[in-house]
Amino acid sequence: MVETMSWKNNVLRLLDQSKLPAEVVELSCNTYQDVADAIKTMKVRGAPAIGAAAAFGMVLGANNYTGENKDNFFSFMDHVAETLKSTRPTAVNLFWAIERMENCLLQYKKNPLNSLLKALEKEATEIFQEDKELNLSIGYHGNKIVPYKATILTHCNAGSLATAGYGTALGVIRAAHEAEKHISVYADETRPLLQGARLTAWELMSEGIPVTLITDSMAGYVMKLGKIDMVIVGADRIAANGDVANKIGTYSLAVLAKEHKIPFYVAAPYSTIDLTLMDGEQIVIEERSHDEIRRVGTIMMAPEKVPVFNPAFDVTPNSMITAIITDKGVIGPPFNVGLKNNGYKRR
Amino acid sequence: MVETMSWKNNVLRLLDQSKLPAEVVELSCNTYQDVADAIKTMKVRGAPAIGAAAAFGMVLGANNYTGENKDNFFSFMDHVAETLKSTRPTAVNLFWAIERMENCLLQYKKNPLNSLLKALEKEATEIFQEDKELNLSIGYHGNKIVPYKATILTHCNAGSLATAGYGTALGVIRAAHEAEKHISVYADETRPLLQGARLTAWELMSEGIPVTLITDSMAGYVMKLGKIDMVIVGADRIAANGDVANKIGTYSLAVLAKEHKIPFYVAAPYSTIDLTLMDGEQIVIEERSHDEIRRVGTIMMAPEKVPVFNPAFDVTPNSMITAIITDKGVIGPPFNVGLKNNGYKRR
Repeated sequence: MVETMSWKNNVLRLLDQSKLPAEVVELSCNTYQDVADAIKTMKVRGAPAIGAAAAFGMVLGANNYTGENKDNFFSFMDHVAETLKSTRPTAVNLFWAIERMENCLLQYKKNPLNSLLKALEKEATEIFQEDKELNLSIGYHGNKIVPYKATILTHCNAGSLATAGYGTALGVIRAAHEAEKHISVYADETRPLLQGARLTAWELMSEGIPVTLITDSMAGYVMKLGKIDMVIVGADRIAANGDVANKIGTYSLAVLAKEHKIPFYVAAPYSTIDLTLMDGEQIVIEERSHDEIRRVGTIMMAPEKVPVFNPAFDVTPNSMITAIITDKGVIGPPFNVGLKNNGYKRR
Repeated sequence: MVETMSWKNNVLRLLDQSKLPAEVVELSCNTYQDVADAIKTMKVRGAPAIGAAAAFGMVLGANNYTGENKDNFFSFMDHVAETLKSTRPTAVNLFWAIERMENCLLQYKKNPLNSLLKALEKEATEIFQEDKELNLSIGYHGNKIVPYKATILTHCNAGSLATAGYGTALGVIRAAHEAEKHISVYADETRPLLQGARLTAWELMSEGIPVTLITDSMAGYVMKLGKIDMVIVGADRIAANGDVANKIGTYSLAVLAKEHKIPFYVAAPYSTIDLTLMDGEQIVIEERSHDEIRRVGTIMMAPEKVPVFNPAFDVTPNSMITAIITDKGVIGPPFNVGLKNNGYKRR
């Protein structure tokens, strides 16, 4: 399985996902700014992976502190946290992980700096390890609802690369494959950044899971041809009522699944559930650089100055979601009840 | 307005649409094989433009004939026609134009070769000229159903470039713009070959029609945000019952429009209507090279050997179409009646 990130000797090593699959390049982050930059430029992406990377970013920030005064240390760490939080607005795992690190700081604030650093490193490592286990649980629960020989459509990459390992949507797919259910996958290429073509196709092929690549615009036709049994996608933020923010195009898929009476599942760990937001309307949607659409790679594919709208995410209303597969189990509607009973409440 | 093709001194000059907008290159076709190749590789594309190019391809074929025996001439022309017909299976305008040229051959078969050549050239020029006029009529009729300040979503390129001039879907948009209705356009980029980004955005910008470029996956979200008043697309073949084959992704757009209660229009000349087919199920859907999806331009964006499904078109059922805008007027359901009364019956 692909190793998205590793932590050793106070260095966070990231697989540079912006270069895959053409180049397999490892990126060394020695400072919290390195981590912030890697998140912003999507060298590391996927809600749970962003969360884990940001946690290590907090450790690096603490390590980077050169002052002697411990009071200044705390205001410096506030700055580190704000820098990391400002990278991307939509995936809640980022804020969840940083807040967990801030709570750790608070808990050990009276300890000497050295011991505080150790506590932070332990907390980040736990966030990272825990995410792997959460994904295995998501796979375990999700596998139960995957029929034998199912063909599953997925969007973007909610795999090993998007998490600390194993994946959320691809975790369910992996678990069904490991259970020898003879499943196969259709992967949307996922414009503009082509995570489906570059990452999901690569991940699935490297494990021998049958995958067919299509453009995003083909999903409806493929459903109409009767080729799809279920849709499984990941999530960047799930509101209390079960509305789901995920990679742009997810909402269109949900509408298409509804039209074709195909079940539509969302797979995510508790760290993606944000019970502080009543519904999806309140989720901030990031808009990214217009050149992501004008160019493909380095090639200009559109008039240089054409106006562009480039929302990175959309919101799928709870009414279009068959169930949410979490580490606690498969939660069906009404989601406000199911998520409250199973989810984690952010302070 | 952009000149897709021109005919002069027995040479067909085509604007190479595979290179736009980065390079504006003119391609000279001196033989029928040149034309067949240009259609196959989509240097010329768009159903009406393919039809007109193929008609000139028949003239070039006749010019290319080197024999002296007129009987051999007719079997040679059968071969020319078959070569041109074998380039792309879905757009019916190709077959319509070639059959019209074949009928011309039949009509003048007793004439001397020289006079036959002139008749063919006249017929091809008429097909070309007529298409421009048909587009102007489509624009005239279509403009009536475009509200003041409407925002129109379109897919692929059904513009000047896709026709002999003015365009079908973009013809309606042009007419509404010329009527000073202050319309604006959202253009789907239209993967895999990005005709929306490369051609539609370029065409609209060059005429000062406001356009915003989005990826295909954003259409649903943009509709949900309330930004779209109507969808207008072109067509590659319309069956007797009003089912429409058009660029892949059109069907998804129709489903999304239905979900959001947005009117969905198809604009096409009579030459795109194929009353010999009862419904869309009978339309042959071309599947194109898998590398169109694996690569963008020359860059490999997916694992080199990933399995791909690459249908170039899909079929939108008549039930999802508000009206078909033809050169004869705006035809509403039931389409089998409206098309029969207004449409052209092949042979």
